[in-house]
Amino acid sequence: MTLPRKELFHLPEGVIYLDGNSLGPLPRSVAARVAGTVTDEWGDMLIRGWNDAEWADQPARVGNRIAGLIGAPEGSVTMGDTLSIKVYQALAAALAMRPDRRVVISDSGNFPTDLYMAEGLLRTLGRGHELRVVAPEEVDGAIGEEVAAVMLTEVDYRTGRRHDMSAITAKAHDAGAVMIWDLAHSAGAVPVDMTASNAEFAVGCTYKYLNGGPGAPAFIYVRPDLADSAEPALQGWFGHEAPFAFDIDYRPAPGVERMRVGTPPVIQMTALEEALMVWDGVDMDEVRSAAIALMERFITEVEARCPSLELASPRDPAKRGSQVSFRFSEGYAAMQALIARGVIGDFRAPDIMRFGFTPLYLGEDDVLAAVDVLADVLGNELWRDPAYQKRSRVT
Amino acid sequence: MTLPRKELFHLPEGVIYLDGNSLGPLPRSVAARVAGTVTDEWGDMLIRGWNDAEWADQPARVGNRIAGLIGAPEGSVTMGDTLSIKVYQALAAALAMRPDRRVVISDSGNFPTDLYMAEGLLRTLGRGHELRVVAPEEVDGAIGEEVAAVMLTEVDYRTGRRHDMSAITAKAHDAGAVMIWDLAHSAGAVPVDMTASNAEFAVGCTYKYLNGGPGAPAFIYVRPDLADSAEPALQGWFGHEAPFAFDIDYRPAPGVERMRVGTPPVIQMTALEEALMVWDGVDMDEVRSAAIALMERFITEVEARCPSLELASPRDPAKRGSQVSFRFSEGYAAMQALIARGVIGDFRAPDIMRFGFTPLYLGEDDVLAAVDVLADVLGNELWRDPAYQKRSRVT
Repeated sequence: MTLPRKELFHLPEGVIYLDGNSLGPLPRSVAARVAGTVTDEWGDMLIRGWNDAEWADQPARVGNRIAGLIGAPEGSVTMGDTLSIKVYQALAAALAMRPDRRVVISDSGNFPTDLYMAEGLLRTLGRGHELRVVAPEEVDGAIGEEVAAVMLTEVDYRTGRRHDMSAITAKAHDAGAVMIWDLAHSAGAVPVDMTASNAEFAVGCTYKYLNGGPGAPAFIYVRPDLADSAEPALQGWFGHEAPFAFDIDYRPAPGVERMRVGTPPVIQMTALEEALMVWDGVDMDEVRSAAIALMERFITEVEARCPSLELASPRDPAKRGSQVSFRFSEGYAAMQALIARGVIGDFRAPDIMRFGFTPLYLGEDDVLAAVDVLADVLGNELWRDPAYQKRSRVT
Repeated sequence: MTLPRKELFHLPEGVIYLDGNSLGPLPRSVAARVAGTVTDEWGDMLIRGWNDAEWADQPARVGNRIAGLIGAPEGSVTMGDTLSIKVYQALAAALAMRPDRRVVISDSGNFPTDLYMAEGLLRTLGRGHELRVVAPEEVDGAIGEEVAAVMLTEVDYRTGRRHDMSAITAKAHDAGAVMIWDLAHSAGAVPVDMTASNAEFAVGCTYKYLNGGPGAPAFIYVRPDLADSAEPALQGWFGHEAPFAFDIDYRPAPGVERMRVGTPPVIQMTALEEALMVWDGVDMDEVRSAAIALMERFITEVEARCPSLELASPRDPAKRGSQVSFRFSEGYAAMQALIARGVIGDFRAPDIMRFGFTPLYLGEDDVLAAVDVLADVLGNELWRDPAYQKRSRVT
């Protein structure tokens, strides 16, 4: 197979898209598939779609495709809700497995919502749990015998710094703690082997490197040996053993399906299911090699041509996900100027310009063209245009 | 305005749809709107859609449309997740408002997921809360000074029996309890006046009478005087005061927006937003009168022509939502036979045949034609066909 596979994506003319780490582009076949679900399934089948179009099984079916991309076995992943909800579920189940421990370790490189959800859960539990947020490099030293769970995002959303999943999981297990990985910036970006990692839980979103569309449903993985005993805090009817029996008492479904909650978002899930077709026949190792080649070329060119930018990502590609970040004091305005010229990355306060590298639809020519624009914006200080200084609500 | 407005809906030829209480049909304009969101917004705007297509504000915008249908003021309703999640949020916030009380009252006519989610929350709280599930007619007597919250679904999903919202809310308040209403079978079905009811919280789904499509997002209402102090248990980044500041500490957004959790499902939300256009200029009192006329005609005809069916719904239309249920021991097979002949209702164990009445797209001619088929199925025992006895996974 040859990368990139640009023909599978709808890529607007005149745009070089380096923001697939935030929202992946539209795979071409999704529009027709979604239209079919709206008109032929919802429209024509009406309520019968639950059986005839197999809506009820879709979260398990899509979960199996995700499992294939994160080194997890069939039946160990299910879909639904948002990443925030899945973090809450994983942490609640983890803490129920360690009733005598009261400490949760996370790091300041975690995505904020993971920390917010954890805080909310700990307050709801009301049993004196403590969320200890340490610097990413201090995680290892923070894991002791009092720790119930370690909850980390593998790849830092700002800098792309990548944790060593196997080493940290082993450390957590040595201390008797449960390990939860957030794979938001990993799934579809770097090779992940959940089975080899031996971690108990993983969660992730699907609208970044998996191109599932804005607000695509999240995933949750539960290690198979725990899936029949993990205790769901969010006991929804679609996680019931027999949702359509309408029993008054809750009995969790066997396996990871107990982590489903309410009615699945069928239209949104269909967009994701179709979007995942672009991974057919793709080897994650090949994607990773191609991404590293693109990133190395980008770094070399930027450092040669844009001396005002300072690399914020780890220089060693093995310690980095699939994005490269540079610091620049006028990064916000510079990013606006770039976007106005068709090179789309994004900005994270206070001074980080982020660029995502996604070999499914990006080639070396794109990288070189992007650097040309970046060098022009910086060399000629085009970011000084007042129009680029105005902050929009969402960056 | 004249009802029905069939021209606004995609109604498959040969089908009389009496299951809008389970999944509403497709409003015609939704397909084009969804296609536009997929191709013109996600496809062409990519990440810029959050600003340029105003995705970030959509839950508030859609919430305002729902508010208009449930007698709630602007800014008091927001959208997202599923009804199960919204039940959890409302109950958690309610219990935080009554820290010294330990009893939650619900009834056996509540939809099971509401009870499951409540149980899960109470176990997570671990503070000895008790969920007391009483018979619907015993709710009033069960509300005492020890009750923290009363959590009910206004209209029973099986029989259509309707609680007296104002009276029960007043009773709850007299006892010092917080009131939570589930409007899943009320919004778009019966006139609701949240402001007049004075209840603290309401939640609901949007894929039934609001025709939002399979898995459409849920809504939550918080009484305006409480919205700035209600404590979110599910502290997601989209409920943060400044989601895109990526602060490490959670600060709830002002008002009901704090009840947002993760990234909103933009495609699914767009389908709902467009679906709500069919309510433009519609008077809920007119809808209600038309629904009652259809239901009365249906009951009269069925009782005259199908003596083996026994009315399971309240005979007094004022005590009933917008559905009529009949008991029949062979109800499952009879419903399958009906569906095979294009009359779509549904079945709830052990013996309930449900029929929803939705005057936006149903007229008296539909009701009479449906009864003709029902009388044929029952009079000629067409349900005896073995094909109709086989249970499908989802009814």
